[in-house]
Amino acid sequence: MQINFTPGPSQLYFTVEDHARKAFREGIPSLSHRSAAFEKISKHATDGLKELLELPEGYHILFAGSATEIWERSIQNLVAESSLHFVNGSFSKRYHEIAAQSGRQAHKIEVPAGQGFISYSPTSTPELIALTHNETSTGVSLPLDFIHSFREQHPDALIVVDAVSSLPYPKFDYTKIDSVFFSVQKGFGLPAGLGVWIVNERCIAKAEQLQQRGVNIGTYHSLPTLIANAKKNQTPETPNVLGIYLLGRVVSDFLKRGMHTICKETEYKAAILYHALQNHPAAKPFVADPELRSQTVIVAQAGDATETIAKFLAEHGLQAGDGYGDKKKSQLRFANFPTHSKETYELLVDLLEKINP
Amino acid sequence: MQINFTPGPSQLYFTVEDHARKAFREGIPSLSHRSAAFEKISKHATDGLKELLELPEGYHILFAGSATEIWERSIQNLVAESSLHFVNGSFSKRYHEIAAQSGRQAHKIEVPAGQGFISYSPTSTPELIALTHNETSTGVSLPLDFIHSFREQHPDALIVVDAVSSLPYPKFDYTKIDSVFFSVQKGFGLPAGLGVWIVNERCIAKAEQLQQRGVNIGTYHSLPTLIANAKKNQTPETPNVLGIYLLGRVVSDFLKRGMHTICKETEYKAAILYHALQNHPAAKPFVADPELRSQTVIVAQAGDATETIAKFLAEHGLQAGDGYGDKKKSQLRFANFPTHSKETYELLVDLLEKINP
Repeated sequence: MQINFTPGPSQLYFTVEDHARKAFREGIPSLSHRSAAFEKISKHATDGLKELLELPEGYHILFAGSATEIWERSIQNLVAESSLHFVNGSFSKRYHEIAAQSGRQAHKIEVPAGQGFISYSPTSTPELIALTHNETSTGVSLPLDFIHSFREQHPDALIVVDAVSSLPYPKFDYTKIDSVFFSVQKGFGLPAGLGVWIVNERCIAKAEQLQQRGVNIGTYHSLPTLIANAKKNQTPETPNVLGIYLLGRVVSDFLKRGMHTICKETEYKAAILYHALQNHPAAKPFVADPELRSQTVIVAQAGDATETIAKFLAEHGLQAGDGYGDKKKSQLRFANFPTHSKETYELLVDLLEKINP
Repeated sequence: MQINFTPGPSQLYFTVEDHARKAFREGIPSLSHRSAAFEKISKHATDGLKELLELPEGYHILFAGSATEIWERSIQNLVAESSLHFVNGSFSKRYHEIAAQSGRQAHKIEVPAGQGFISYSPTSTPELIALTHNETSTGVSLPLDFIHSFREQHPDALIVVDAVSSLPYPKFDYTKIDSVFFSVQKGFGLPAGLGVWIVNERCIAKAEQLQQRGVNIGTYHSLPTLIANAKKNQTPETPNVLGIYLLGRVVSDFLKRGMHTICKETEYKAAILYHALQNHPAAKPFVADPELRSQTVIVAQAGDATETIAKFLAEHGLQAGDGYGDKKKSQLRFANFPTHSKETYELLVDLLEKINP
């Protein structure tokens, strides 16, 4: 079987299959979500995540169907009138569109794909500022300093960070962020079908305030309903119990391996791949500014050589991700997640050095 | 391991573990939901369901996170002003509440738990009529004739049927229903985390009409967006790919076994359990009217004997479901799904006959 470098769903974390086998053996998929056994599984996953991400007190972990759902729920629950979106690729653009479709004044600051936002100065007072930490479509990561700078400029705004394809890697200063979310099929290497939404007390207060004002904040997945259930380690609906179980197991595996090791390895793998691309005759890093280059989704501009390179890698057991959207035939994307071993990345780099189309 | 009679999540269908093992071996959980391989998996599941349920032309199958989500989405997409709900238990009540929370005029006709609606005569003209075919909380099934009678009385209303804990058993006349939905962890014996929403062209037209009138019908899971993706055998978001794969496999298993056989066995198992309860000194059928007794969720009123009976069954490897809500200590619920074999039901009946607390 091929090693999968597509940036999501990506290669499963190498322990997942064993955990799933154990789950079936133990009857986890037929547990009631109102049982003490489920509450224990849910608590294990959320406690583990709090430890892994070093969340401060007052941050809550909620489960949704997907990160796409969290785009919608975050707008629905946290914005009465206006949000401000930093758009530099297809996913940040989609978050902005969802805010507009939800009937909010969705403002945006937009730069071309592959670029970041260096010279922002505040002109409006949005209720929510949406930042996509890692643009999965282009391989641009916003520098943490940039993300952390908004709290001071906009003390009243809620700062919401889409970290779909970067967590668990980035070390956010959560005191400068109100909400972060991700989906499990990227960095956590799990089967798709679960989104994880982290919110602080300011988010909860805002949702309650909207509800009191008569804004429709949704029903079973409104923030107050999600929180009331999460406090009991439950969910409003019958959730993806198997997914929550597997998340808890993989988070435990990450904790045993240590975030320090995972981060060092991530940076090593990114460094050797970017180095190989910089020296490659046909494939170059797409993101020009090294400060903006993602450590977890590495995008190569390969033009006419794209197909040849992808084929050569596939012949050697490595499945590169296609470029996103209209870059399908001119770029390749490489997920650099905890499941991708150093050895795999060294093989990838060796192969890239051998191919000169 | 115990055989699980809780009405959802219930005992997995006996083939699911093998299918899951195969899915992991073949890399299904890391497939991109934009790949041809996923489209094939999705088409296999929806084509199979259309055949299994004998859906007429013009009925579409959509995927959501849960049946709870479909309660919300159906109101959001199909109702501008008012819906009418037939409430006879906790789940029909919750559907009504979700409509009210969504800001609609949610009317209801309510009877006590354990009862049906015999003497309905139309007085209003709702846009949507919500019928819960099988009240999982009480074991009442609405007769199919009753469900099918609304089309004539309300030709302009959309008839929406919650069949969460009854499908694939009931043989609906889909020409008299506009939408049906279920979640996979009940009759289909699958891990939770997937809701299946069936809609016809009238539903789609209604959602488009609401959208044109400026009603907020949601974003990524609005009916037009779901349909546009479903036509390509895709989903708007990264879905529960493993769940959709497993659904397709189990539907194929059901087709091989044959719906005729599954229905006959369901009726046999229900008949012997109701018969045992009618003759039991301590546990009686909760639903008094035999016409209203569910074939798929059988509820026993056992009063003070509840705990003793549950313990006795558990000692013999059978896990009865608790009564729902405030009936937790006075009732037992028994799922009668395709995964529960005739032999298992015969054992259950034998054990019930032996215990006289």
